[in-house]
Amino acid sequence: MSTCYTIGIDVGGTTVKLGIFTTDGDLLRKWEVDTCLGENGRAWITDVAEELKTALQEQSISPERVVGVGMGIPGPVEPDGHVTACVNLGLKDCYPGKELSALFYGKRVYLTNDANAAALGELWKGAAQGWNSVCLATLGTGVGGGIVIDGKIVVGAHGSGGEIGHMCVKHNETEACNCGSHGCVEQYASARGIVRVARRMMASTDEPSAMREFEGHFNAKVVCDFAKAGDALALRSLRYSMQKLALAFSQVALCIDPEVFVIGGGVSRAGAFLTDLILEYLRPLTPIIHAEPKVVIAQLGNDAGIYGAARLAMSDPV
Amino acid sequence: MSTCYTIGIDVGGTTVKLGIFTTDGDLLRKWEVDTCLGENGRAWITDVAEELKTALQEQSISPERVVGVGMGIPGPVEPDGHVTACVNLGLKDCYPGKELSALFYGKRVYLTNDANAAALGELWKGAAQGWNSVCLATLGTGVGGGIVIDGKIVVGAHGSGGEIGHMCVKHNETEACNCGSHGCVEQYASARGIVRVARRMMASTDEPSAMREFEGHFNAKVVCDFAKAGDALALRSLRYSMQKLALAFSQVALCIDPEVFVIGGGVSRAGAFLTDLILEYLRPLTPIIHAEPKVVIAQLGNDAGIYGAARLAMSDPV
Repeated sequence: MSTCYTIGIDVGGTTVKLGIFTTDGDLLRKWEVDTCLGENGRAWITDVAEELKTALQEQSISPERVVGVGMGIPGPVEPDGHVTACVNLGLKDCYPGKELSALFYGKRVYLTNDANAAALGELWKGAAQGWNSVCLATLGTGVGGGIVIDGKIVVGAHGSGGEIGHMCVKHNETEACNCGSHGCVEQYASARGIVRVARRMMASTDEPSAMREFEGHFNAKVVCDFAKAGDALALRSLRYSMQKLALAFSQVALCIDPEVFVIGGGVSRAGAFLTDLILEYLRPLTPIIHAEPKVVIAQLGNDAGIYGAARLAMSDPV
Repeated sequence: MSTCYTIGIDVGGTTVKLGIFTTDGDLLRKWEVDTCLGENGRAWITDVAEELKTALQEQSISPERVVGVGMGIPGPVEPDGHVTACVNLGLKDCYPGKELSALFYGKRVYLTNDANAAALGELWKGAAQGWNSVCLATLGTGVGGGIVIDGKIVVGAHGSGGEIGHMCVKHNETEACNCGSHGCVEQYASARGIVRVARRMMASTDEPSAMREFEGHFNAKVVCDFAKAGDALALRSLRYSMQKLALAFSQVALCIDPEVFVIGGGVSRAGAFLTDLILEYLRPLTPIIHAEPKVVIAQLGNDAGIYGAARLAMSDPV
């Protein structure tokens, strides 16, 4: 039998990542191009089509052997592929998947949110391989989230499935989140949130901490590293952040009861130190679930999105 | 074409409800029997098999025309039909579906949690008819929950999908919930919880209220009725309870983004007054979802469970 191929695309505000995979999940080639945002945030679509055509030629892959194309974008995608608004790309009221399809041999393009794609990627070939359901939280600038049940992305009626970064975990928060709400988990457990919590905690006490030497100019890695090294204030601060994330995870557990939680994004480099803290707070929150919760670190890094998009492209046509 | 039939069973701690439906969803006959809990909580299984055989004979329905049997029980059911523990029935480590199947012509029995069945029932023939995804909350003694996505019950890896009654919505609660956790939505928005909140509020103030005449002996209906009638304390109390429920709904919305929320159980008789309060609190909690949330009152009452179980029996064999 001849090999078939699947294509995964991960569109970010700065670069578009592309990957060509065999349908078995072997990555043949990956590369990235700048995200050209001209033409109302659409110019990159033409670029991507050209890139893919050239790459297939170079790899001597005939377009007929491509089963489909999957694409993740940084914003909500409705079940029919419609995008009401994608702020990071400047897209409004369009069907980016259909537009790419028209420029790329009419191949069906499966469009989804980038965090959903990453969740599916980790399930296919990453940290959640071998499981059927997963909740992914990417701790980066914000907290992205993606949920997969029975191998299928939970899109949601309005494309907002898996938006766990905006679950409310503090009821008396006075600062607003970017989304307009107050007390979102993103305000405490994202890279920015971890720094914010640490700054607040330092301002509220005179307790000494190695973090004070940075005079406010530090990142989440500093908080994690100092917490690991035994700095009491850094540890208390990181505990607070992970307690908030555990609270959001407990809500997810009581909603869809996934087999495993996966932590991705830059912050996840803190590794088992982080997952141990999360588990410590998560366990007592879900006593009615008769099983030990599982929290693991993502394995695919920045490639999770193209893996997941490529896997999505292998879905049965609707 | 000859008519085919499906059977729905809703097992409670006191009675077992049974229903025979056409596969189109017409209810031909419903009845109930006492739940006999002898033989390690299993005696009712034999009773149910006998009841069904007799009923089919009386309706002149040949067993070959029954496509399947669905059954809801008051506890978690794992994806393979295994029940680790069902406290209300005294069941432990068993496969009640397989046991019934062996006594009823070897028909496949689809087992699920009763609240999940009710959610599917409301989606099939009740308040959520015409939608594909729903989150049901039954406000009774406790808060039961069931979630359906794309017409399929979200079972969860350990059978705990849809257990929204135990989502934590108050972080500094000192009283423990039945489940062992603290601050579960059930502690505020169940029939008992509504009364508990009202009592607490009355104890914390000297403000006059018609509820005081009951000297603590009142139920959730009294709180709802007095709130509707304009009793300020009753209204503030009910608002508090519904705010907690709305908070849990917002977590569900940001997790699976269902098309509609359905409120069932005895408390739901308060009708639109209740759903309006919930919506008032739910809207500001999910600004990132670009759609007006929908909350409606259940329509099938105590029959939701047999409807849903009957619908579940029409699932494709795995």
